[in-house]
Amino acid sequence: MLADTLASLQPIDKTIADRVLAHLNRLTKPPGSLGRLESLAVTLATITGEAFPRVTPPGVLVFAADHGVAAEGVSAFPQAVTGQMVANFLAGGAAINVFARQIGARLEVIDVGVAAELPGQAPEFVDEKVRFGTANFVERDAMTRAEAERAVEVGIRAAKRAIEGGCRCLIVGEMGIANTTASSALLAVLTGEPVANLIGPGTGIPESRLSHKQAIIERAIRARAPDRQDPMDMLAKLGGLEIAAMTGAYLGGASRRLPLLVDGFIATVAALLACRLNPVVRDYLIFAHRSSEPGHVKALVALGGEPLLDLELRLGEGTGAALAFPLLTAATGMLADMATFEAAGVAGGEGT
Amino acid sequence: MLADTLASLQPIDKTIADRVLAHLNRLTKPPGSLGRLESLAVTLATITGEAFPRVTPPGVLVFAADHGVAAEGVSAFPQAVTGQMVANFLAGGAAINVFARQIGARLEVIDVGVAAELPGQAPEFVDEKVRFGTANFVERDAMTRAEAERAVEVGIRAAKRAIEGGCRCLIVGEMGIANTTASSALLAVLTGEPVANLIGPGTGIPESRLSHKQAIIERAIRARAPDRQDPMDMLAKLGGLEIAAMTGAYLGGASRRLPLLVDGFIATVAALLACRLNPVVRDYLIFAHRSSEPGHVKALVALGGEPLLDLELRLGEGTGAALAFPLLTAATGMLADMATFEAAGVAGGEGT
Repeated sequence: MLADTLASLQPIDKTIADRVLAHLNRLTKPPGSLGRLESLAVTLATITGEAFPRVTPPGVLVFAADHGVAAEGVSAFPQAVTGQMVANFLAGGAAINVFARQIGARLEVIDVGVAAELPGQAPEFVDEKVRFGTANFVERDAMTRAEAERAVEVGIRAAKRAIEGGCRCLIVGEMGIANTTASSALLAVLTGEPVANLIGPGTGIPESRLSHKQAIIERAIRARAPDRQDPMDMLAKLGGLEIAAMTGAYLGGASRRLPLLVDGFIATVAALLACRLNPVVRDYLIFAHRSSEPGHVKALVALGGEPLLDLELRLGEGTGAALAFPLLTAATGMLADMATFEAAGVAGGEGT
Repeated sequence: MLADTLASLQPIDKTIADRVLAHLNRLTKPPGSLGRLESLAVTLATITGEAFPRVTPPGVLVFAADHGVAAEGVSAFPQAVTGQMVANFLAGGAAINVFARQIGARLEVIDVGVAAELPGQAPEFVDEKVRFGTANFVERDAMTRAEAERAVEVGIRAAKRAIEGGCRCLIVGEMGIANTTASSALLAVLTGEPVANLIGPGTGIPESRLSHKQAIIERAIRARAPDRQDPMDMLAKLGGLEIAAMTGAYLGGASRRLPLLVDGFIATVAALLACRLNPVVRDYLIFAHRSSEPGHVKALVALGGEPLLDLELRLGEGTGAALAFPLLTAATGMLADMATFEAAGVAGGEGT
């Protein structure tokens, strides 16, 4: 399935851009005066191939998994919180639940590798557990290459389910205690950037423990020595099961020409991995926000991404993308519902 | 009415902030991880005096008026566009219509001084015309002081109608060909900043005409010589009728403790005038976005405002504020609808 998905990716339709720009300049506003909302509208048209793209309803896919490296004390929260937060997602009480409801999203919570048995009775829950958490990658590979591929395919399947369910935009989120550690390790390998430039407090370790986090990551990279040219090798050696699944969700979404609204640090690292597997994915990405995790800026630079929001968020779950989503509906509404100068009987400006 | 409104302004309730912060830290997310959304929630609580503030439905008030200085060729659009755009607002085809519908806003369009007879049959239309446009302030005062006061009172009344209609947040927008010229003149007087640092293309004059726009504004300021300590004198001599009404709307909204979501350049200049009339207004202001009009940054600095969005908008009408509004509903939804660690059975992090 992974090979098929990678082979099926098509470039976006850049030829539609001129037509959309011409329409934007006929709408009752000075040309260009809606700034980045106008370029966003053009981007959505080129991604979908539609001059009047639609993005509702969005699908929110939250992938959850545990990380063996949590045993090294790199997170402010105990590992059990991953499973507890999955229960919270299913009860509707987490931030992503609130924001997903506000944007009318369809939410699915996928267990790719939580290190606990989860009851998972709720209809939004999907059990695709590949293993009970990764191994501690300071000591051994996080997972086998076959497991990494299975986790990527969990993401591809989730994207396809969302699309078959009618979703027109994907928001990919995550929950996994210690996953900023795994993402920082992956990003250091992906970009060659020193670990010290990438790490931050994650969800909240004190600054005094940052050097410990840094040492753990540096040790793991040396010990695992992943192949920088091989994203699947990186995922197997330093990855997380949810990060692999997110990578797959981006591949699956791009293969069906959906706008992919990328959340924060972990989501952007997964998007970068997807782009390394097939660079065509890049054109389907829209960056929701710039998080306050230092590595996020480096990940955005690696992708040439300019985010829509800058609100010092560092929660994950897909929350930043859900917060940015109304800008996408505004952009599509502008295209579809504004009057033209001609139709409204409004005189154009100079040069129009 | 103006004097009563100014006298009725009360400081915000800062004592509620600690209570809201404590609640935010019990919610199932690392403390502070929703960044500026959390400080926004605290701000909304202090403004409304409610620990669980509500901001829906918002009211959008679009004030329209003409400017005599348009005769000097400072705009890319002819003066007739003001009235034509009012018709477009009432037909539902302008950008603010699209965005107001998306946020479930109640929209009202108020003619404070359009230089044309408007049919205005639509229920959203209010005829409060004070005069048929301002005079060309290069040649004489834009209006009399009495007219400026009447225009301010138009805004106060509009805010009160919106509040009595159930609105819980105000977005104040405008339409008026040449109103960036009037706003730049007012801001230069309000801040002492050189005109050259404030002006920009407005809705789209070519760069070659910017020096003409600058010369017109400088000449008007010298000729009118308004009293820098007297906002009503500034409004009468260099103002616009819609700018005066917007000033009044901020006063009226603040007097009833509503969050005032401030749009772009012209709206921020009007907000600054309201703060000069009574500094208490400042605490009721939430800045929606940083526009690409150069003077806007100076107006924001004068108010110590840090906007939520930065999307290179320069349309006005209240559009930037409407685009930012979903962040307010997200902030209030976070407070009201997220589970606490205790209720959700999620282990807290270190130090929680």
